[in-house]
Amino acid sequence: MAAAEFALIDWIRREAGRKAVPAVRVGIGDDAAVLDWPAGRACLVTTDMLMEGVDFTADTATPELIGRKALAVNLSDIAAMGGRPVAAFVSVCLTQGRGEKFARRLYGGLFELAREFHVAIAGGDTNSWGGPLVINITVLGEPIAGAPLLRSGARPGDWICVTGWLGGSLAGRHLTFMPRVAEVAAILEHVRPTAMIDISDGLAADLHHILEASGVGARVEATRLPLSPEIGLLPADKSPLDRALSDGEDFELLFTVSPVDGERLLAGWSGATPLTRIGEITPGSGGGLVLEDGGETELEARGWAHPL
Amino acid sequence: MAAAEFALIDWIRREAGRKAVPAVRVGIGDDAAVLDWPAGRACLVTTDMLMEGVDFTADTATPELIGRKALAVNLSDIAAMGGRPVAAFVSVCLTQGRGEKFARRLYGGLFELAREFHVAIAGGDTNSWGGPLVINITVLGEPIAGAPLLRSGARPGDWICVTGWLGGSLAGRHLTFMPRVAEVAAILEHVRPTAMIDISDGLAADLHHILEASGVGARVEATRLPLSPEIGLLPADKSPLDRALSDGEDFELLFTVSPVDGERLLAGWSGATPLTRIGEITPGSGGGLVLEDGGETELEARGWAHPL
Repeated sequence: MAAAEFALIDWIRREAGRKAVPAVRVGIGDDAAVLDWPAGRACLVTTDMLMEGVDFTADTATPELIGRKALAVNLSDIAAMGGRPVAAFVSVCLTQGRGEKFARRLYGGLFELAREFHVAIAGGDTNSWGGPLVINITVLGEPIAGAPLLRSGARPGDWICVTGWLGGSLAGRHLTFMPRVAEVAAILEHVRPTAMIDISDGLAADLHHILEASGVGARVEATRLPLSPEIGLLPADKSPLDRALSDGEDFELLFTVSPVDGERLLAGWSGATPLTRIGEITPGSGGGLVLEDGGETELEARGWAHPL
Repeated sequence: MAAAEFALIDWIRREAGRKAVPAVRVGIGDDAAVLDWPAGRACLVTTDMLMEGVDFTADTATPELIGRKALAVNLSDIAAMGGRPVAAFVSVCLTQGRGEKFARRLYGGLFELAREFHVAIAGGDTNSWGGPLVINITVLGEPIAGAPLLRSGARPGDWICVTGWLGGSLAGRHLTFMPRVAEVAAILEHVRPTAMIDISDGLAADLHHILEASGVGARVEATRLPLSPEIGLLPADKSPLDRALSDGEDFELLFTVSPVDGERLLAGWSGATPLTRIGEITPGSGGGLVLEDGGETELEARGWAHPL
């Protein structure tokens, strides 16, 4: 059995070595990776841990999709900083008894997405135990010109915009979503957003992160929200508006931009992923939601929190 | 309960912010950290995942020692590259029901070691579930002048040396060991080792990693091994020699150095941690062990491997 671990690590190392990334001087196989970082370029670092039964279940997700999601959520974070991902470091705790094939499929899904975004798998830690699958990935990225984009720069009057579609991710998109790496690069070709975050906890909760970091308020218009067609695949116990505000795991970019830049961005946008203006930043604090009938209600920062 | 997670994250953020590290432009609190990396300096990256019941047990280790170990194993990897640790990224999956105090103590142990080594806690991911505790830390470091030190540079005739003491770590040192960050800096002031690794799997297994990466063989003298006094605290079912070769988790530095440099290093060494010459690199491959009676046996690469 022990030999299987070494065979797996050898396979991971060969797969990772198939695609050379110039920044990686030494990849998998030493005590640490050695990256050559471009002079004067900041280093963006993000890390995310996914757990079986919480972030995915092995009976509703293939091993490939689990590996893919574990990398994708990190690429989404790098995108939300205005960055380009460079290298990933993958730690897993595999469930004993599932065998080497499961592990190869997990890494296979992850390698495929990595190749698509030219990200090196430059290191990691492979373990196993009797418990459920845990996977942690750390990604290093470099800011595109004009970045990094923080949560703290939103100013009253700024437009609030979002990429793609909101709500209903549990129908499948939480596993298959495309991190908005190309989109943020295209946005930065046109304008410099004043603040940006990716939507993991849900629009309402993540907008509040921008509001708190920037010391401002917001007004969002319910009728402008780009509802995902996937909402229709889920039970109607939660309204489509509620799903768009709080389902979470949309992994879209939520950002603010000055009105002048906003006009220019939306007028010049030809990307396949839509950009939608959903509201504006206000003085003060907290969020308001303008409903279909013109009434206004509080935009509560509902979202997922882990009990301790 | 949800509020407890945010309170914990706020506390972590405040604690992490208490000690400014110049390289960290943006720490905890955005989608990714922003580090200013010195021009022309490579970036060392290592990551390690520790699991309850495998790498520690909650009834034999305090929460502080668990947090400490999770960081220390990564600092040891950076040291083994000839590096200085700069910033750490901490992902945890806490066991629900243990409460916020357990979590604070875990992070408390980790922060204390981080302060000792001037390492910033610059990001992470906090989760919880019904399963056992899992903690993953990624550490970024920068090479000291003369580094990075890889596993692949050992040449026939080189001396094989080791810091500190070997064997018996399970008596407690696997939790309390001091990563050899200061020692590698002191070694690099004298000489440039040709290869280096930290001993996590045991001297025999980790020496084989150097031999394979360098394409050489080795002869180790049993009587020269610096046996840890802690071996005496453990059951006698395994001989002291066996423990020194294969107990693992010593987290000492194992390195090779040219004979000229080796003479100079040992003659000039005044560090509190001993340096011991334990053998030499030979042409060919594989390892030999010279026993007390002068006979020679094969040095098997025994070590821990995870079943799949």
